[in-house]
Amino acid sequence: MIDVRNPEDGFAALRARIDALGEPVGGDRGEAGEPLTVGEWALLIEDIVEKPDDATGGIYNVATPEEDDREYDAIFVGGGAGGRFGAAYLRARGGRQLIVDAWPFLGGSCPHQACVPHHLFSECARELDLARHMQGRLWYPEFDESKASILGIVELFKKGRSLPHAVMNWQSKQQLDLEFILNAPATVIDEHTVEVEGRQFRARNLVLGTGARTAYPDISGIEQNGVFDFASLIEDLDYEPTSCVIIGGSKVALEYGSFFQATGCQTTILTRSPLLRTASLHHIDEDMRTYVIDMMVDRGIVIHEGVEPLEVLGDGRATGVRYRGSDGETVEIETDFVFVGTGERPNLKLYDALGLETDDRGFVVADSTMKTSSPSVRAIGDLLGSPMEMFKARKCGMAAARNIMGEHYEYDYSEYPDFFHTTYEVTWCGLTEAEARERYPNVIKLQMPPDDSDPESFPLPAAEGSMLYAFTRPILSGWFKLVIDADSRRILGAHHVGFGAKDAFQYIDYLIRRPEGWTIDDMAELSELFLNPEHFIQLSRLRAGKQQLVNL
Amino acid sequence: MIDVRNPEDGFAALRARIDALGEPVGGDRGEAGEPLTVGEWALLIEDIVEKPDDATGGIYNVATPEEDDREYDAIFVGGGAGGRFGAAYLRARGGRQLIVDAWPFLGGSCPHQACVPHHLFSECARELDLARHMQGRLWYPEFDESKASILGIVELFKKGRSLPHAVMNWQSKQQLDLEFILNAPATVIDEHTVEVEGRQFRARNLVLGTGARTAYPDISGIEQNGVFDFASLIEDLDYEPTSCVIIGGSKVALEYGSFFQATGCQTTILTRSPLLRTASLHHIDEDMRTYVIDMMVDRGIVIHEGVEPLEVLGDGRATGVRYRGSDGETVEIETDFVFVGTGERPNLKLYDALGLETDDRGFVVADSTMKTSSPSVRAIGDLLGSPMEMFKARKCGMAAARNIMGEHYEYDYSEYPDFFHTTYEVTWCGLTEAEARERYPNVIKLQMPPDDSDPESFPLPAAEGSMLYAFTRPILSGWFKLVIDADSRRILGAHHVGFGAKDAFQYIDYLIRRPEGWTIDDMAELSELFLNPEHFIQLSRLRAGKQQLVNL
Repeated sequence: MIDVRNPEDGFAALRARIDALGEPVGGDRGEAGEPLTVGEWALLIEDIVEKPDDATGGIYNVATPEEDDREYDAIFVGGGAGGRFGAAYLRARGGRQLIVDAWPFLGGSCPHQACVPHHLFSECARELDLARHMQGRLWYPEFDESKASILGIVELFKKGRSLPHAVMNWQSKQQLDLEFILNAPATVIDEHTVEVEGRQFRARNLVLGTGARTAYPDISGIEQNGVFDFASLIEDLDYEPTSCVIIGGSKVALEYGSFFQATGCQTTILTRSPLLRTASLHHIDEDMRTYVIDMMVDRGIVIHEGVEPLEVLGDGRATGVRYRGSDGETVEIETDFVFVGTGERPNLKLYDALGLETDDRGFVVADSTMKTSSPSVRAIGDLLGSPMEMFKARKCGMAAARNIMGEHYEYDYSEYPDFFHTTYEVTWCGLTEAEARERYPNVIKLQMPPDDSDPESFPLPAAEGSMLYAFTRPILSGWFKLVIDADSRRILGAHHVGFGAKDAFQYIDYLIRRPEGWTIDDMAELSELFLNPEHFIQLSRLRAGKQQLVNL
Repeated sequence: MIDVRNPEDGFAALRARIDALGEPVGGDRGEAGEPLTVGEWALLIEDIVEKPDDATGGIYNVATPEEDDREYDAIFVGGGAGGRFGAAYLRARGGRQLIVDAWPFLGGSCPHQACVPHHLFSECARELDLARHMQGRLWYPEFDESKASILGIVELFKKGRSLPHAVMNWQSKQQLDLEFILNAPATVIDEHTVEVEGRQFRARNLVLGTGARTAYPDISGIEQNGVFDFASLIEDLDYEPTSCVIIGGSKVALEYGSFFQATGCQTTILTRSPLLRTASLHHIDEDMRTYVIDMMVDRGIVIHEGVEPLEVLGDGRATGVRYRGSDGETVEIETDFVFVGTGERPNLKLYDALGLETDDRGFVVADSTMKTSSPSVRAIGDLLGSPMEMFKARKCGMAAARNIMGEHYEYDYSEYPDFFHTTYEVTWCGLTEAEARERYPNVIKLQMPPDDSDPESFPLPAAEGSMLYAFTRPILSGWFKLVIDADSRRILGAHHVGFGAKDAFQYIDYLIRRPEGWTIDDMAELSELFLNPEHFIQLSRLRAGKQQLVNL
């Protein structure tokens, strides 16, 4: 146990380990007795992750009773997205908090195995797609598939992931003044008590935020080498896959499948439900779905929907997958790389002492204040099920903190903007065209390419990130639709495939969900930054003059 | 003169020319007697642009008196951003309009010589920058500078620009039902009359929207071959530049300079005013400026501020530039390529008959209803001066249309979001930190990397488009700042350098300019699509718990 609230001893002990590890990135070295810099944290985290058995023990950034003898308002079990944000909010409100995490960093799986690598891999997928499509044009050489290595990209991520981790630790200590214990698993004793390395901490409330992990389907051979999920891909991959079979049709399946295919690793997706028609994804516009899947197939991905995976073949190492096709026939497909993308479930073993109520899928049941069946225990983030997204985890954490600090605050996450990557960014919010037509008699849309155009000759939408596609093969440049109730003129939904529009959807979602709504006339008042990837503003203005709105 | 309101004759005549030109993109061919498809328009436009002397004459899509004998409410002289949007708005309101344009397409200079090529070139700059930075890593081969050809990229644009033009023609006819005459210059006879190919058209109002062109500084040798502006670069470049000297420090100078440098064409910028401190750009945050310029210099661009260009050297073809340095010494620099980026001015010769009032820089004077000194004449877009941006042109067109149709509508374009490209997307709105501190006693900011961090080790912001930088050299991954009045908690300004944040700024600008403002607490309620390139929402939430806001 190293107490970094005591800079003389704590940081000196850590620095002794860090100094042996080499120079921090950019020479980012701190003074003796001062807190660790981002560069120093990164060296330390990397070393602990690589050599977990080297006994550093818990890294305690915990106020001693002389500094702060108030009871903890909350102990956050898990310092990922929800725990860290919840703790920061509670601390900012003047409460006392403690985060305990088994990993040597705050931020959780996102920067270690989930969102951050996904973004790096999806950026590689986009760049590989461009390199392949543009080969022989302009400065792009012939694309050398043998150089596009999944293993190499995973290794780049692993080599660099300690820096984002380090930022979270640095920020949590220096900027947010949080109390935390890292690199030490928590044992939950009861609804007020957590034990870490034999020391007990008591709090008015526990906030549980330890996330979820891939739920493997119960089929023979799935435990072999050569079968990966998004987390083990990063920790365990040690060879270059030559082909890939994906079991499942989740966002993760689409995202990683698109990445594998872009590297030249022939990818086949086996999914029970049709792609993008799973319960965990809502508001998928049918035209958007068509464009997304067409473009995946255009890139060579093979998709089998309505199939039943039966077995991963192999003798200790995966050599293929046997599945029942949609026609009932049994098929075997060879592969040296199986990727499981069937969704995630929480591991609740840590909470056995609490006897929490769960739903039929194994998620913790909590009310809109995050309260579980145990009144002083709140659960946040992926423990609660879909949507397993950062905004939900963080806002759950915030909601828990507000309630614990005495404010009644309810958080409803049933509606939200959403996105995933293929080689494109796919983003949407609000109603699909079909959903809108069910609820409103007079729905119009602004869409590009329009239904009555030939997308092979229609180079719009185009903007940041899609210009090279637009000028070489227009159909590749993207697709979008804005759905409008022509009677109230309110915007009901927005759907986009392309690049550079994602961040805008955070705001569009906010605006169209206001109780008073947001109309095409409101949107037309904005000042577009042209070429704007989502093109919505100018198209709204081009139609807003009309009393009787019609399609564009 | 070909009348395409008469499909039998008009389209047949055009199709006779088009059919000789080959197959439209994607086989996008229409039926005899039907309007032209996007693909057909593209072939026609390309042919007319390439062979302007082949006598097609004006392409008339004008209702005959049998179809519509109402007086025109407005004739739009120039069918660019402002004219086309203004005409569409007026038409949507039930008015009768006519657009006249000398080019064979609607949309103006934007898709022909300005925004669209700028976006293609800036995307190439970004991709070239990545290819160079990543060379030897992952699948990226050694970067072969000899293959990165400015001429080749310009030619790709020229070969493809007819398709976006064609979309504008197709949309204006099929979806917007506009009346227009293309490929025929207008002669303005008086404030109600325009003559085209000997035929006079009369309207209640004229709306002038013919834009601006590069104002060349009055220095010796500037008219030689080898001296270009953004328009002539596209029309006239016929060799591969080996080095570049840019005269001027406008947005165009930064954008094209970054592109030239990225291709390996060593670029020197000679600018009188310090970069990003010109009158035509406002609200440039000093930290943003520093990051942007540092990153340009990091890429090898040479910047000389406070200098006076004296002469373009050469004997009919530019061989160098002579300038007075900031120390008063005269310097000569060799180059085979001079690019003028000193800003634009309108050409008002066409309007001599109207005797319009202009300001001391040669721009037309108009009030907030776009009315000029001649009461039935309105002027829109770049004719009015800065900002010379699409949103302003389009909204001016809309404002003119609304007023002409009897609604009193004022348009004030003194505040707006703004952007430009280097190899990054640079976007901002609202107040800079310094401006905010002048007006408010208690200003805080959310910034990444923070002031007290080492940006070489700080891999945030990162998200779509910056992941490969973040994982190889963190300082390259971008920069941002959100400026907040700690007392009212209102967001005052936002500033970003990176990728994927641009479209969001359209909405942030709208929200923070609402009379009631938009607070950090409001922003914290949004649902971020993580990693979100602008990172603002989660950082707001990480601070919003605090009663006394402080920096993050």
